[in-house]
Amino acid sequence: MPYFDAASAAPLHPVARQALLAALDEGWADPARLYREGRRARLLLDAAREAAAEAVGCRTDELVFTPSGTRALHDGIAGALAGRRRVGRHLVVSAVEHSAVLQSAAALDAAGGSVTEVTVDRTGRVAPDTYAAALRPDTALAVLQSANHEVGTAQPVAEVARECRAAGVPLLVDAAQTLAWEPAPEGWSLLAASAHKWGGPSGVGLLAVRKGVRFAAQGPADERESGRAPGFPNLPAIVAAAASLRAVRAEAVAEEARLRELVARVRAEVPRLVPDVEVVGDPVRRLPHLVTFSCLYVDGEVLLHALDRAGFSVSSGSSCTSSTLEPSHVLRAMGVLSEGNVRVSLPMGTAAKDVEDFLAVLPEVVASVRERAGAPAGTPAAAGGEARELVLDSLGKRCPIPVIELAKVIGDVPVGGLVTVLSDDEAARLDIPAWCDMRGQEYVGERPAERGVAYTVRRRS
Amino acid sequence: MPYFDAASAAPLHPVARQALLAALDEGWADPARLYREGRRARLLLDAAREAAAEAVGCRTDELVFTPSGTRALHDGIAGALAGRRRVGRHLVVSAVEHSAVLQSAAALDAAGGSVTEVTVDRTGRVAPDTYAAALRPDTALAVLQSANHEVGTAQPVAEVARECRAAGVPLLVDAAQTLAWEPAPEGWSLLAASAHKWGGPSGVGLLAVRKGVRFAAQGPADERESGRAPGFPNLPAIVAAAASLRAVRAEAVAEEARLRELVARVRAEVPRLVPDVEVVGDPVRRLPHLVTFSCLYVDGEVLLHALDRAGFSVSSGSSCTSSTLEPSHVLRAMGVLSEGNVRVSLPMGTAAKDVEDFLAVLPEVVASVRERAGAPAGTPAAAGGEARELVLDSLGKRCPIPVIELAKVIGDVPVGGLVTVLSDDEAARLDIPAWCDMRGQEYVGERPAERGVAYTVRRRS
Repeated sequence: MPYFDAASAAPLHPVARQALLAALDEGWADPARLYREGRRARLLLDAAREAAAEAVGCRTDELVFTPSGTRALHDGIAGALAGRRRVGRHLVVSAVEHSAVLQSAAALDAAGGSVTEVTVDRTGRVAPDTYAAALRPDTALAVLQSANHEVGTAQPVAEVARECRAAGVPLLVDAAQTLAWEPAPEGWSLLAASAHKWGGPSGVGLLAVRKGVRFAAQGPADERESGRAPGFPNLPAIVAAAASLRAVRAEAVAEEARLRELVARVRAEVPRLVPDVEVVGDPVRRLPHLVTFSCLYVDGEVLLHALDRAGFSVSSGSSCTSSTLEPSHVLRAMGVLSEGNVRVSLPMGTAAKDVEDFLAVLPEVVASVRERAGAPAGTPAAAGGEARELVLDSLGKRCPIPVIELAKVIGDVPVGGLVTVLSDDEAARLDIPAWCDMRGQEYVGERPAERGVAYTVRRRS
Repeated sequence: MPYFDAASAAPLHPVARQALLAALDEGWADPARLYREGRRARLLLDAAREAAAEAVGCRTDELVFTPSGTRALHDGIAGALAGRRRVGRHLVVSAVEHSAVLQSAAALDAAGGSVTEVTVDRTGRVAPDTYAAALRPDTALAVLQSANHEVGTAQPVAEVARECRAAGVPLLVDAAQTLAWEPAPEGWSLLAASAHKWGGPSGVGLLAVRKGVRFAAQGPADERESGRAPGFPNLPAIVAAAASLRAVRAEAVAEEARLRELVARVRAEVPRLVPDVEVVGDPVRRLPHLVTFSCLYVDGEVLLHALDRAGFSVSSGSSCTSSTLEPSHVLRAMGVLSEGNVRVSLPMGTAAKDVEDFLAVLPEVVASVRERAGAPAGTPAAAGGEARELVLDSLGKRCPIPVIELAKVIGDVPVGGLVTVLSDDEAARLDIPAWCDMRGQEYVGERPAERGVAYTVRRRS
């Protein structure tokens, strides 16, 4: 059964499993103790740190293990901000960072600091000069991911690092999505990552802080992990994580080329096989194993369940698959279609046949989801109705219904006529303009309405 | 090779190992995902939470999994303090809590709050009325361990809980040392524990917060674990932790009685077999598996290494085994001898023969350590020297040297004469009065000296 959500978590790598089993026997004791079991645990911890530091490209005393990638980001950002508090309390992040970064930014904002979110283009990429323009004399820290976790777009980390260095601002690189493939580009001051993205077990993140970077760990501290990650270390898992990182790196070059071809095939075939699809993310500067597309007139959750029944595990940034009823902040920042969103991220070792099977199944699955949702087929009637303007009340209806209803009534106005959609669904803000783009209609704009928002569209074809 | 440091960490319980292996296959995916691997992970997480909640004696929605017992304490205390910030910023703890609690107290103190440390008696036990007297109108939280991790003394949790309830103050119970044996006594508002104390893997703590207790998780939050423990859950380990807790509880009654007998034997035999030993902690109201004693004229680290070479893994609260050169805060709060401190904590299943072997080896090991340190044998010469008062310069010398030197010169003054020891070793403050107690001499008192502290002793025998 093909699992295509490696960007979320991957099954344990066989090497990690083996290392974990060995470390369960040899590494369960407290590495701070003086007796033989403690010394054995300390040796394992030291060896794991060496292996991880080598893969990261840092010194062992710059690297600590944290309980997760999220905690590495939370604690890394908090420590870096506190270390430079005398400089100021301004934080720069890209608008498409992992939610853990945005949570940290929100916490800073709530505590009286300030945050600048650097915008991205439609591919999800920041422009180095836009990023540089956000740096201020009171900027304590800048954060940038090495590549985006939802759409796969690689960020210009080296260029942004140069800008940060010129401005004297430390840069934290969230390398969660790329550390399996390669070390982060030179120039980072802090680096965070997560083991279960590279076939390691859950419960292990890592945080590296370059010597000389001001850092003041926040919260109660103990003597563990240089005072930067309190609590008994998650030792057998750390050993497994380090072993796995080394193993996947050894496989990375060959596997990257192979997966990149599979992803290229998905990128090319999906729009050919499925009508009304937008493939999102940078087509070239991207993660090798991840591809994301959105399907017009499709409820993301229904699509996920249908693909699951067909045997494929994928994830989605559609609003209907989140508890907040909001589309993913990444898709929103990019300004691309969010309905029917599907992220395919291939674990290392994915068989080409599984990808072919996915492509074989997808058209029918999308078609049946669209049919059940009552999605319109084809283009609107050539001759419009009489009314020059229609108002469509979609209040209380969730993605993708407002867009489906819009598509159904657009033929009721003549070319040049207007349709105004009233909607209180957050996804409409993204999906109505995206629909216009894809269907050759003109998006006029939005304005607040008595309830929800009024989105106006001019029929062009 | 007998391992006697279960209070620090225990080898993985066979049931935990089995559960871990199964969960590595079934529970590696993100339990928040909708596809089959995610749903399987969610089922495992839910089942683990049910098992843990049953063992704790709480509802499943009151319990979250944290990355360690330390983090459960740090985050539990921070959240409870923040939840009652309008009441005040006063925290009550006992003087013998786990260092994670004292770290949290220090953080509160540094942030402008206030802390009362409730004193303990020579057995390490708080008195409920002393504890109650520390509660104030602005007390936001009280913390008490169920039993002490260094000396095994059980605390009067139920009585203190009643006092707290009467004062309207929530009580956080650190149940790390007892949860393997039994649920915490009724009356707690928050409860923290750590899986690797009960044969579970490292990387798993638990925090329970009773419904109705004001709690505001601090730091950046995500949607995991009711917003109380951010980051990807450490899932296979959580499954193993819950399985292990259930398994050890099933064995607890029989095992408790058996280990209690072994510990009673150590408590009785050590002072009989080894001269100049103080067994510390409450003799009756105590953990079943843990016994602690201190040996006069013994360097704790040398003793640990000697026992390690003899095949026994134990821990110590002596200053020389800590990086801070300070004796354990627990022994200090109790006012008992800290030099040559040994904590024996028996894992479940410890063979009686291993304990007998330990008792057989200990006298010779202690004797040889004492001999190498030049410890005095027997009592001081009956006839003292001529000087009525001697000053002994032990500056720059570390435990147990100042006490050994004191013992050597006490015979140089007549009965009634004084010896003043100059020492800058923190352990001397504990160990010189303790030596007086044990050797029938009179401890006169201490005063600051030009360097270090002057400790004065009157010869009585």
